[in-house]
Amino acid sequence: MIHRGLILGKKRKKASIISIGTEIIKGKITDFNSFWISKYLSKFGIDVKFHISVSDNIQNIAEAFNTVKNCDIVITTGGLGPTEDDNTKQAMAEFLNKNLFFDTNIWRNINKRYFKGRKEIPESNKKQAMNIKGGISIKNERGTAPGLYYNNKNTHYFLLPGPPRENRPMIENFFSETLKKNELIGNKEYEKKLRIYGVGESTLADILEGLETDCEIGYYFKEKAWLELDISNKESDWEASKKKVKETEEKIMKILNKKNIFYTGDVELNEKVFSYLKNLNKSISFAETICGGKLGSKLIEIPGASKIFKGSVVAYSDRIKIDFMGVSEKLIKKHGAVSNEVAQKMAEQARKLFGSNIGVGVTGIAGPSGGSKDKPVGLVHFTISVDNKCYNFQKNFIGDRKRIVYKVINSVFVELIKVLKKTFY
Amino acid sequence: MIHRGLILGKKRKKASIISIGTEIIKGKITDFNSFWISKYLSKFGIDVKFHISVSDNIQNIAEAFNTVKNCDIVITTGGLGPTEDDNTKQAMAEFLNKNLFFDTNIWRNINKRYFKGRKEIPESNKKQAMNIKGGISIKNERGTAPGLYYNNKNTHYFLLPGPPRENRPMIENFFSETLKKNELIGNKEYEKKLRIYGVGESTLADILEGLETDCEIGYYFKEKAWLELDISNKESDWEASKKKVKETEEKIMKILNKKNIFYTGDVELNEKVFSYLKNLNKSISFAETICGGKLGSKLIEIPGASKIFKGSVVAYSDRIKIDFMGVSEKLIKKHGAVSNEVAQKMAEQARKLFGSNIGVGVTGIAGPSGGSKDKPVGLVHFTISVDNKCYNFQKNFIGDRKRIVYKVINSVFVELIKVLKKTFY
Repeated sequence: MIHRGLILGKKRKKASIISIGTEIIKGKITDFNSFWISKYLSKFGIDVKFHISVSDNIQNIAEAFNTVKNCDIVITTGGLGPTEDDNTKQAMAEFLNKNLFFDTNIWRNINKRYFKGRKEIPESNKKQAMNIKGGISIKNERGTAPGLYYNNKNTHYFLLPGPPRENRPMIENFFSETLKKNELIGNKEYEKKLRIYGVGESTLADILEGLETDCEIGYYFKEKAWLELDISNKESDWEASKKKVKETEEKIMKILNKKNIFYTGDVELNEKVFSYLKNLNKSISFAETICGGKLGSKLIEIPGASKIFKGSVVAYSDRIKIDFMGVSEKLIKKHGAVSNEVAQKMAEQARKLFGSNIGVGVTGIAGPSGGSKDKPVGLVHFTISVDNKCYNFQKNFIGDRKRIVYKVINSVFVELIKVLKKTFY
Repeated sequence: MIHRGLILGKKRKKASIISIGTEIIKGKITDFNSFWISKYLSKFGIDVKFHISVSDNIQNIAEAFNTVKNCDIVITTGGLGPTEDDNTKQAMAEFLNKNLFFDTNIWRNINKRYFKGRKEIPESNKKQAMNIKGGISIKNERGTAPGLYYNNKNTHYFLLPGPPRENRPMIENFFSETLKKNELIGNKEYEKKLRIYGVGESTLADILEGLETDCEIGYYFKEKAWLELDISNKESDWEASKKKVKETEEKIMKILNKKNIFYTGDVELNEKVFSYLKNLNKSISFAETICGGKLGSKLIEIPGASKIFKGSVVAYSDRIKIDFMGVSEKLIKKHGAVSNEVAQKMAEQARKLFGSNIGVGVTGIAGPSGGSKDKPVGLVHFTISVDNKCYNFQKNFIGDRKRIVYKVINSVFVELIKVLKKTFY
């Protein structure tokens, strides 16, 4: 149960996250730490006030500390390494008007853990053993930079290294335990997520207009061409909150069902396809052009995919379609390579060649060139062949090459699930 | 030439970026705006001080404005829509201690551009016509929310909508022009980028230790399993800066060449493969297991891929390898499905089946299960078949399933380029 350990009815605490590093502020790397930590904090019923990214400059970091001084919790990532650009501790000391001292205990631990056996320890690493009076070193199991925890009564400071693989275990262990120990955990927001396929934001907005609800609803268009819809509620009573979210979720699902709009819950579409096929004990194969192999590669992202996935043929030229996929030259001449007829032949042939229960054939035009008036960029024909039955689909997608490919994948998977439901349930 | 229009020798201006939206602060969506805008600003020789992300709360937004009040340029994204959560203008007015007024000019434009022909305009959209005395509305060609520009002598404020497709044209047009008009452009930093494949961060650090340079060097591990190395220099004289960067770049390339480490410049590996094949007028096909089709799908990301890519077979079961790829049962029994022998047979067969100049066969174990003591997770055998010659490779990768697949793709493409060089140059 996710709501264990919650202290209900308490005022939620406020946190801010400071990401330190010139590489972030210059747009060299995207800061995924604050994103991840925010999600993590929401599990503890803690509100986030600011994310701040700042360069390695001491004055700027100190200023960032000053900006968030009224928060209950401050988490920094980055700037704990041994180089002269690593200034987080110094900046915090400056902001608090305290001195740093060389902590022999920390130094011993660094030596023990990372430099065992080595004769010469780089002098620069001594920087990582600096501490502030009252500061507690946080173990870093995956790197040389220990974290630092400091509590000045009003604010709990957690200084963590930048690499996610180093800081995440520190958050999951020391940080979480400190939150619990200091009773900083607030009401968890009850939340449900729906993943919606095949409609855009404005369509969804129109559909949901006038929906009566006590919940907060947000939806966000994801790069891979689907919409995430979040339903949340922050009642002081967890059960009441849950009930309200469920009510709203049911209302929304009813609307979506009525409009024949496809959605999943927490699960991604490829996982959904995988579990359907696995539960039905059915195998699949693809013959495709437009996605270049991406349909199969989406399935193999899931460990154990070999149980349901037999393989693909990517027939990127007409000759291959003819030699391989049993598509006759005449058929291509008559209907074009992007047509129902060719898609169907490819689907049937994939099923036979790979000996799978289901064969899917996909043809289409991803653009930017290759379109015509009759067959514009974004036109896709695909067929799902199950036993002796073929289901043909024609779609017209808009967007750039990448977006069109994502839409094709989503659309094939959605229709596939519908066909599986119809055929086997 | 990128350095046109620079005012050399001037002090660089400082900018901060505020991303507004509860969805960011809660970790629902990643803020790519500040990342993109930072990169854009660096083209104009402008330093970024802070990225701040903040919720829709007016007080918090006003506080964010206060934090960055000493910057020359402040850019906000988000919070300009018609809903009650859209508070950016109100927060700025509060921070500046000014009033908002309903600007009939802006309203007329909104009507003209977006609601032409519609009888009923939602009352809520009137919010988007609010202005501050002295403020200038910024045209939004792709949405209903106009931006707002305000200059209070010390600071130039640019309030922009959140969606990248709306705000980017506004940055490229109005924002850029305003920077030029107000002489806010500083020394452009000269910069070169190397993309390095097949080594980790610590190896690169060891290799570059002791390198003498006047440049700043940064390197960042990218999700798709390569390292980005940036060389930059901020001299007041552009030509001097360029010279220094080139010198350092040459030194580094020399070291990398000596160590036989593969790198590209600004170009991604799949583009590099594409242009090699295109220039040589050679075609390629794949027979693969471990990537599930991703090798082909990386190539088809590039428009015009059909010129060089003939197709793939994803042989995800032994039966397919036997029926399709001419791999004998005996061969699999003797050497295992993941072996040099099977990879080679698949490569040769792919070349023949698809009638391509080059055939690549890839077998491997992506994990997490399926490994053994002899053949552990991460073991990959692949073959590049060109005419009558086969080049066999064995690699042992570490990482999770996803990371291993990325490493396989990079490795296949790197070795392919090497083979192409050796064979055709």
